[in-house]
Amino acid sequence: MQPDIKLAAALFDTLDRTTRRGRGIDRDSYGDGEQRAHDLMRSTSASLGLETAVDPIGNLMMTLPGRDRRAPRIIVGSHLDSSPQSGNYDGAAGVIAGLCVLSALKGAGRQLDCDVTVMAIRAEESSWFNISYLGSSGAFGLLDPACLAVKRSDNGKTLESALLERGFDPQPIRERRALLDRSQIRAYLELHIEQGPTLVAERLPAAVVSGIRGCKRFRNARCLGQYAHSGAVNRPHRHDAVAATVALLHHLESVWVRHEQDGLDLVITFGELYTDPACHAPSKVSGETRFVIDIRSVSEALMDEVADQARRAAARIGAEYRVNFDLGETVDSPAAVMDERLRAGLRARLERPFEMPSGAGHDAATFAKVGIPTGMIFVRNENGSHNPDEAMSLDDFEVAAHALLGLLLDFPSL
Amino acid sequence: MQPDIKLAAALFDTLDRTTRRGRGIDRDSYGDGEQRAHDLMRSTSASLGLETAVDPIGNLMMTLPGRDRRAPRIIVGSHLDSSPQSGNYDGAAGVIAGLCVLSALKGAGRQLDCDVTVMAIRAEESSWFNISYLGSSGAFGLLDPACLAVKRSDNGKTLESALLERGFDPQPIRERRALLDRSQIRAYLELHIEQGPTLVAERLPAAVVSGIRGCKRFRNARCLGQYAHSGAVNRPHRHDAVAATVALLHHLESVWVRHEQDGLDLVITFGELYTDPACHAPSKVSGETRFVIDIRSVSEALMDEVADQARRAAARIGAEYRVNFDLGETVDSPAAVMDERLRAGLRARLERPFEMPSGAGHDAATFAKVGIPTGMIFVRNENGSHNPDEAMSLDDFEVAAHALLGLLLDFPSL
Repeated sequence: MQPDIKLAAALFDTLDRTTRRGRGIDRDSYGDGEQRAHDLMRSTSASLGLETAVDPIGNLMMTLPGRDRRAPRIIVGSHLDSSPQSGNYDGAAGVIAGLCVLSALKGAGRQLDCDVTVMAIRAEESSWFNISYLGSSGAFGLLDPACLAVKRSDNGKTLESALLERGFDPQPIRERRALLDRSQIRAYLELHIEQGPTLVAERLPAAVVSGIRGCKRFRNARCLGQYAHSGAVNRPHRHDAVAATVALLHHLESVWVRHEQDGLDLVITFGELYTDPACHAPSKVSGETRFVIDIRSVSEALMDEVADQARRAAARIGAEYRVNFDLGETVDSPAAVMDERLRAGLRARLERPFEMPSGAGHDAATFAKVGIPTGMIFVRNENGSHNPDEAMSLDDFEVAAHALLGLLLDFPSL
Repeated sequence: MQPDIKLAAALFDTLDRTTRRGRGIDRDSYGDGEQRAHDLMRSTSASLGLETAVDPIGNLMMTLPGRDRRAPRIIVGSHLDSSPQSGNYDGAAGVIAGLCVLSALKGAGRQLDCDVTVMAIRAEESSWFNISYLGSSGAFGLLDPACLAVKRSDNGKTLESALLERGFDPQPIRERRALLDRSQIRAYLELHIEQGPTLVAERLPAAVVSGIRGCKRFRNARCLGQYAHSGAVNRPHRHDAVAATVALLHHLESVWVRHEQDGLDLVITFGELYTDPACHAPSKVSGETRFVIDIRSVSEALMDEVADQARRAAARIGAEYRVNFDLGETVDSPAAVMDERLRAGLRARLERPFEMPSGAGHDAATFAKVGIPTGMIFVRNENGSHNPDEAMSLDDFEVAAHALLGLLLDFPSL
């Protein structure tokens, strides 16, 4: 049996036409763009004869009934929103994969032993409301009710008013009430484009995700030194915030290289680094820097260790350069472990089995967090994601969707 | 014979009262603040019975006639403008030192063998018209006439209209006409506060300046990499502009330390360093940095060598990190050599002789540049300059002014 790739091609095409604005795709969380994508999937679900439902916060559930309607179901999901001026595939590919798998099952008249629900999840991207996984976290009652007051980054509308305008209900979020019963979910599966270059480099169409990297981030790190004339103050009298920061960040890169050589999973990124534009000058020793240290790994222990190494190095280098580092608290998202049997099941269905960690976060992390066996499969994608140049071929998509369908047809007992 | 410190104290005091605005001193170049300082020195010169003249661009010349009026004269000078919200001593101390030396000579009835002119120079600070040494450079016809169209940074008034409003004449600048004949100047001497912390650290009241550091500055250096997801892209696939820039700057610090250990005069400063606020994010590998590399030394050869080392390191590290460095052209100000006999003469008149380079630029550099034997003496100053907390004691000032007076009384044949 083959996934319904014709359906997938048509859905990608319509989605592109209806949600492209200028050069990129804009499917704003709880906005018009995301809604257009939900409307398309909902009408497709109806025309496929699936059971269609929308939960109080807007997640769309499209179900192929199984033989035992009371058995815990399998959810195949992903999100339909996009970051601003993004590509057509990040998120949507997973929902479309689910639909073209259910279309194949339906077309072949195959009924599984449990329900299979394709879940089109709301608002995964943090670009709009500065919170990731709103839809999946909300479905499990995991959101802090304070999120309802968060304003959308571009138009200042609160999440609560965005929900109400679409006819959704903020009450479950306010009550931290779960909309899904985790004990009634047998497994969660997600297909997603790879957001990095690994599969392109490895010349592979797809990969099984071994785990989702957590993140430990010093979001507001600072170095405080003392501004001084660049010509008139020699090294021993400087309190040079840039030189000290450079020394710290260079040291952390060597820490990374060492762990990498030991075969450990780790990435460290300094995505923001700046002197103060109101005070800096070419002829001034800088008195202040601000920067971010973003530490990611599938291993919580390694992230803790690297954060400790950063703190110790900041103390040592701060003393050496006569400056004060204030790394601040870390903001943490835990690593998510993928289910071993689902990983094995997906690997077995790839011609060239390959596993890799996911560096980006996904709704799958929410399902794993609440204890649901979770599996993910990546599809090769060029040019990264969150930009208009995302490029996934339908052939690669088919390889991954085919593995998903195969796994469903012969689902391991969990 | 002692310099007239009572006069100095009165002048510093009046200057402070008449040019302080809020917390700091504002003696804006060719503006009201600078003019008040000129008016004060001019009336003082007249009351001391000195010959007083103002050149077409506003430099004030206060002369004690010598025995041979046709012999090349000695100029003791400095500037009367200040940077915005500055201290009372940067610049003015040199003019006041000249006046309290001439007052002592006049009071003692001593006539030197040549004229001695105290020159209160206009517009040394670049803060107002973005050009350093306007007054001294203009006096030697060295200004690019295009400078007349430069607008004052705060009020947008052009230099030309600022000159005309004060009754001065932009024509010599337009014609690149020298107002001073370099062959008629035997020597130039300048007393100035130290703008760094060296004399405070060395517990010395004054120092002879060995030379004025030149500057070779990569003003608009850039590193171009590629933005990417911080979690999803491993090290081998990154084009990380921050990591590469950190590696380059850290390497240049090691170059500096090596030259310093060899006893060479050098400072390297990265006063501006920033990722692009429109594109950077905590979860993005950075695709671009901008930074400044400011190299200073009394040795032109060493500055050239370090600039070459920077270019070579940028090529090597750029290849290693798969990014492109574009350091751009350097903006150069040449180092100024101080006259060996004047240095020796000043050293001999300090109780504890100490020499150091000047890291900041001074009008003295202009005089040295046109081939006039030039000497400088620094006075200890706390808290750096260009800020309201400049602090020079009259005792320290007296030590330096005394050395100046001693040198004039027994001037070496040049």
